Amino acid sequence: MQQKFGLIVRDRRLKRGLSQERLADIAGLHRTYVSLLERGLRTPSLYVIAKLAEALETTITDLVYELPGGGSVGPQEKNVPGSRRRPSR
Amino acid sequence: MQQKFGLIVRDRRLKRGLSQERLADIAGLHRTYVSLLERGLRTPSLYVIAKLAEALETTITDLVYELPGGGSVGPQEKNVPGSRRRPSR
Repeated sequence: MQQKFGLIVRDRRLKRGLSQERLADIAGLHRTYVSLLERGLRTPSLYVIAKLAEALETTITDLVYELPGGGSVGPQEKNVPGSRRRPSR
Repeated sequence: MQQKFGLIVRDRRLKRGLSQERLADIAGLHRTYVSLLERGLRTPSLYVIAKLAEALETTITDLVYELPGGGSVGPQEKNVPGSRRRPSR
């Protein structure tokens, strides 16, 4: 999952024409950390996700909804009976 | 922001009629950690957010879109020119 998150961040960064260094500067993160994130070598905290979303001028949701379990199902349609059901244990 | 996240987790947990202990068990987290999260005393990683979403039979998006910058603006409407603009520095 963190690999996919890294690809999403890279995609959004490149679409905005930012270097890793510039993104890191805007988001208040270290450039090395941004590089590790984009390569899926770090799992971001919610705090980091929020800072990246702000720096990329997008939403937290935009950065997570393509992840596995992220939310391709819209808020109005979630919790459809029988979908995504997990067996009790 | 982590306070708000904790309230969202608590809300979703109570709507499903789960105790903190039961949620912790399903999500593979420690009960103490779930308690700290719900009280906003810990910032979750993306990994923990995903595990909570699965355990609550919802999506990551559902757990984050009510946060500040989370994404009340839909994916189709994001990046509207002039909105949420951040000055360069």
